[in-house]
Amino acid sequence: MVALGGGMGLSASLTALRRITGDLTAVVTVADDGGSSGRLRDELGVLPPGDLRKALAALCGDDDWGRTWAEVIQHRFESRGELHEHAVGNLLIVALWEQLGDHVQALDLVGKLLGAHGRVLPMSAVPLELRASVRGHDPDRPDDLTTVRGQATVALTPGEVQEVHLVPHDPPAVPEAVRAVLDADWVVLGPGSWFSSVIPHLLVPELLEALTETKARKVLSLNLAPQPGETDGFSPQRHLEVLARHAPKLAFDVVLADQDAVPDQDSLSEAAKRLGGAVELAPVAALDGSPKHDPELLAAAYDRIFRMHGRIGPWR
Amino acid sequence: MVALGGGMGLSASLTALRRITGDLTAVVTVADDGGSSGRLRDELGVLPPGDLRKALAALCGDDDWGRTWAEVIQHRFESRGELHEHAVGNLLIVALWEQLGDHVQALDLVGKLLGAHGRVLPMSAVPLELRASVRGHDPDRPDDLTTVRGQATVALTPGEVQEVHLVPHDPPAVPEAVRAVLDADWVVLGPGSWFSSVIPHLLVPELLEALTETKARKVLSLNLAPQPGETDGFSPQRHLEVLARHAPKLAFDVVLADQDAVPDQDSLSEAAKRLGGAVELAPVAALDGSPKHDPELLAAAYDRIFRMHGRIGPWR
Repeated sequence: MVALGGGMGLSASLTALRRITGDLTAVVTVADDGGSSGRLRDELGVLPPGDLRKALAALCGDDDWGRTWAEVIQHRFESRGELHEHAVGNLLIVALWEQLGDHVQALDLVGKLLGAHGRVLPMSAVPLELRASVRGHDPDRPDDLTTVRGQATVALTPGEVQEVHLVPHDPPAVPEAVRAVLDADWVVLGPGSWFSSVIPHLLVPELLEALTETKARKVLSLNLAPQPGETDGFSPQRHLEVLARHAPKLAFDVVLADQDAVPDQDSLSEAAKRLGGAVELAPVAALDGSPKHDPELLAAAYDRIFRMHGRIGPWR
Repeated sequence: MVALGGGMGLSASLTALRRITGDLTAVVTVADDGGSSGRLRDELGVLPPGDLRKALAALCGDDDWGRTWAEVIQHRFESRGELHEHAVGNLLIVALWEQLGDHVQALDLVGKLLGAHGRVLPMSAVPLELRASVRGHDPDRPDDLTTVRGQATVALTPGEVQEVHLVPHDPPAVPEAVRAVLDADWVVLGPGSWFSSVIPHLLVPELLEALTETKARKVLSLNLAPQPGETDGFSPQRHLEVLARHAPKLAFDVVLADQDAVPDQDSLSEAAKRLGGAVELAPVAALDGSPKHDPELLAAAYDRIFRMHGRIGPWR
């Protein structure tokens, strides 16, 4: 089983999926340029490690050892100095990359340290820049298109994101990630920041090709709420439309959404049909009302989908 | 068996001792204020982790896993930015201190990660400042005494170090270190930077008391050459004299020196006698002529001493 995404959304998906499969690979975006990851990119010319670190922490072992090391890699320094806000796991992952000279081997080693229930791979071995075409970036010129550069900037941009692309435009995929997608029974894309964690995977040509060619069934897992800045005011069906604009040939079998986050079920069903799939509504939001997924509920929803739509285990 | 010291000297001792005992505890100085450790002290108010890291790396497991993680914790970033020269293991140890709130537990966890052949403890849980009385610090006033502050500065000071002391003056020892000294069959002090890695242990009152009271036999392991700055021009016997000046009641059973590093064997024997012990001469220097200990030769010398002077195993 392969989960694609980045950030908190991917962590939510992994926290759910680890409960229902013993064979899980995360394929993670590497376009982040903010915070600790952005500083490490700038200073050392490495892949941004932050989303990879979060995915590894989400897969950590259930015992004291795994949980302790997960907390350690998530630990951030707080000071008035040069280490402020750096996450220890980011520094550790980067050191392993420098020491071993191999992204995948290094991440596998951190996974082994954590006793991780699955594997974490970058979607590309090249640090990527996200660029967005934004309409109305300048409020005085609401119809103009502006190019906004960098994931951290895109995430907070005023105006409406029309399209994103990556620089370099044609980045190579990590071969192990392509292989994982081709070999999977199920692929889950999302939830997560739509333009900066979900769509970027479709802009890596070899990965898009693998997603199109794989015999795996595909789930598109929607967010619980639009994200201020990135997808302000976007309806669920609008999320599907912008995704299809970036990958017109890519089909999904199932679109998973929380029933309370879908004001217009018919429109979403139509949009899902255009992607080749059907909508599954399930209560997946945290019970405290925050726009976060509840891991148990999300696991139950995935499990139901995997059983209903067949090809359930034995997981490879 | 307990080895006390810091820096390269302690690593040499540990690399030798791990070959001949399965029960090894390192007690490590925490007065460093230079380099990566010094910056971490300043920025985060923590113990300097560098000597602890080096000791842990020297004890790493013999398998791929242990060696790989030892290389990773020794890895230093190189950049034009804020991480330049920081050793990854220092950042990891500090993160564990912050995360777990317990120095010893954190170091034990890193030891477990490395599959370490022994335990590494700080001599005190309080970051210490080393101060030195230096004669002739100002070359125009060769007889004046000057106070020089900070280990990194003391290590390179012009003039002749007469005496060192710690600030705070009366630091508490780490209880596990005291216990280890009291329970040991053998205690090894040195080799290492005499004023900044060897003598400081004798300035922690509870540790000096344990060293005085323990029934363990004690080896003082001498350096292969004087250290420019700290002990420029010091003869081997002079090393013993300055040590005795800092801990007049502390006796040693054996003083180990390389035969080629002792120009005047009679004077050294007399100085050793005043410490209550005998000199053992053995070839322990690296065969390439560098002033470094050869681990195999040093191990053979320790082993011979432990056997000759009895109370050999079973090690506790």
